[in-house]
Formats: sequence, structure tokens, C-alpha cells
Amino acid sequence: MFPSSLKKLIDNFRMLPGIGGKTAERLAFSMLEFDKNNLTSFANAILEVRDHIGHCKVCGNISEGDLCSICSNSDRDFSTIFVVERPKDIILFEKLGVYKGFYHVLNGLISPLDGIGPDEIEISSLLSRINNSDVQEVILALKPSIEGETTMQYIKKILSDKNIKVTKIATGVPIGTDMEYIDSLTLELAIDERKNMN
Amino acid sequence: MFPSSLKKLIDNFRMLPGIGGKTAERLAFSMLEFDKNNLTSFANAILEVRDHIGHCKVCGNISEGDLCSICSNSDRDFSTIFVVERPKDIILFEKLGVYKGFYHVLNGLISPLDGIGPDEIEISSLLSRINNSDVQEVILALKPSIEGETTMQYIKKILSDKNIKVTKIATGVPIGTDMEYIDSLTLELAIDERKNMN
Repeated sequence: MFPSSLKKLIDNFRMLPGIGGKTAERLAFSMLEFDKNNLTSFANAILEVRDHIGHCKVCGNISEGDLCSICSNSDRDFSTIFVVERPKDIILFEKLGVYKGFYHVLNGLISPLDGIGPDEIEISSLLSRINNSDVQEVILALKPSIEGETTMQYIKKILSDKNIKVTKIATGVPIGTDMEYIDSLTLELAIDERKNMN
Repeated sequence: MFPSSLKKLIDNFRMLPGIGGKTAERLAFSMLEFDKNNLTSFANAILEVRDHIGHCKVCGNISEGDLCSICSNSDRDFSTIFVVERPKDIILFEKLGVYKGFYHVLNGLISPLDGIGPDEIEISSLLSRINNSDVQEVILALKPSIEGETTMQYIKKILSDKNIKVTKIATGVPIGTDMEYIDSLTLELAIDERKNMN
């Protein structure tokens, strides 16, 4: 029913997360109305990402060079490392504009059931960064799942013999959400971690 | 915040209909986890569409050759032409698998307010197809908007001196929809076009 080149484009769109058959068709069809130059630019953007995006040798963030834009910024605060699971978490936190230190990407979480132990993720590189610097605080910002908690506990333990503050970001009820939509584990945590009002 | 090649890819995704900033970021980021071969294949699919997809010289459907797969199929019914606004409407109706004749793409609708008259859309090519063939019925399947109705009335008029049946697809309440979600114009039409039950 579709010309073969259009079919191929639809199949490629379907590989994207959250894009089902109907959306893939709609997107591919919309490209038929693009100017040919825009199609060239779209294809080139994909090829540039393929050829130029790698990972920062220090923190694991995505980067076009050896060092990402954060690690190569000497104005940032060298005393803190903010530990995240994936490079895109860095974007999320950078958009807030409140954190001024450095990051470390674990590239996964400890998950014994999936055969992922501490050696499969970037924990030893975190340790050697800490050993070779004056870091005073490690902030753990992993998702509050079993894997996230396990990983945070593990990092807390291996850092226990060092004179470093280890913190984790707060879990609880998000602002502006109806209570009924929050899962029970989050509600329990929100009760456990309740605070005095002042 | 984003490496420049990733930024370009995000900007390209934003050109797609229904893709806002957040989705464009999510899609571009997901491509960072693609195998390099898959990125090559995606870029090539876009370039193939750019280079190989054109329009059928007879009906205006999208096609990789001079004639689309429908116009080059001699098993189809030569006595009917099904008139649609856009090539993608053909896909919609072909998926139903009930219509076996040929199509004609107008590539727009008459819209005096937008300066689009009968000469700006593919009406003269429809007329010459009809004059050079044994077409017995023209089925109009344009959307039931002011522009769609105007265009259907215009085509009906220019075909009035020919011995050809001109029909249009039914408007009314869609199956499986709550009445309260249907606009009042559709409800009025559904009443006007009510049928005897048998």
C-alpha cells in the first residue's frame, strides 16, 4: 500500500519510543510535504549525531569532545558531585539552574535480577574521581525504585570510610498532584520522612 | 546545554506536526541509544523519500514511479473515480479494502478566503480524465467543512452536463461515539439526512 521508501521511513519512526504504527505513518507522511532541503537537513542531523556525539571521559555525560560542557567549565563548584543514572537526567537538573557543581553518570543501576552488579556500572570511575579530588559532598539523585535504592546504599557504603557527606534527593508527594494518583510506596515514604513545620 | 549536533536533531524533530519541545528532546535523546547502523538506516530512509517519492501523473497519489500502484493495477474497476483531498486519504480508504476503483487527489480544497479557486487545485485534470474514459460514477470524499462542501458543489456543477452519477460519502454521527461529543453541525446534518428504517 505504501511506496517502499515511505514504508522504510515509517518503520524507522516506529523504532522511536512511544511512537506506534499510526503516529509513525502520520509523521512519515508529514515529511512528504517538507521542502527537500529540510529533508536533507533532517538526515544530516541524524548522521551528525551518529558521528559526533560520544561520552565525556570524566563524567559520562553526552559530549562532542573528550570533555562535556560542564566538566570543561572551571567556574563550577568543584566540591560536589551529583550522581545520576543517565545523561538525560543531567539535562533535567541543569534546566532547573540551581545546581552548580559537577555530575557523574552511572549508566545504569545495580540490579542483581538482571545480572547488573556494581562493576557493570560506572562506580569505580566515581570512586577514582573522588580519590583524586577535593569533593566534599556526593549527592545521589537516582530514582526511588528498588534498583535506585540499592545503588544509593551501595555507594553510601563504599564512601563510608572517607570524610565525605553523602546525601540523596528527597522522595515524597510531588507538588500539584492529587493524592489519589500517588502510589502507596511513595505515600509511605512521605509519611516516614515527614518534617516538623516551622 | 545540548551538544550542537543533538540540538540540531531536536530542532528537526520539532518541525514534525504534533511534536513539541519536550517530545522532540525525548525522541532525539532516544536516538543516542540507537546502534550506529540504525541511525544510518534512519537517515537513508529520509534521503530515499526525498529522492524517490513523487506524485502519480494520473491521480496525484504518492508514487515512486510515473504511475502509482493503484493506477497501474488493471484489475481495478475503471468505472469509478473516488475524489479525495490528500494522498493520505487514499491510504485511509485503501485500508478498508472495500473500494476497488480509482482515485483522484485534488491536492487542496476551494477556499476563496485563502485565495484558492478551482484552478489552484486538480479539478481540470479530473475533468480531462473523465472526458477521456468511461467513468460512470464520481464519488466525492472531501471533509464536511465549508471548503469541502464548496468544492463538492463545484465539481457536481461542472459534471452536470455529463451523463455521470456524482455521489458523496455520508455525513452523520460516527459509530461508537457519545452523542454529547458530536458538534452541533454534524447533529443537524444527521437529522436532515435521516433515513427510513427497514
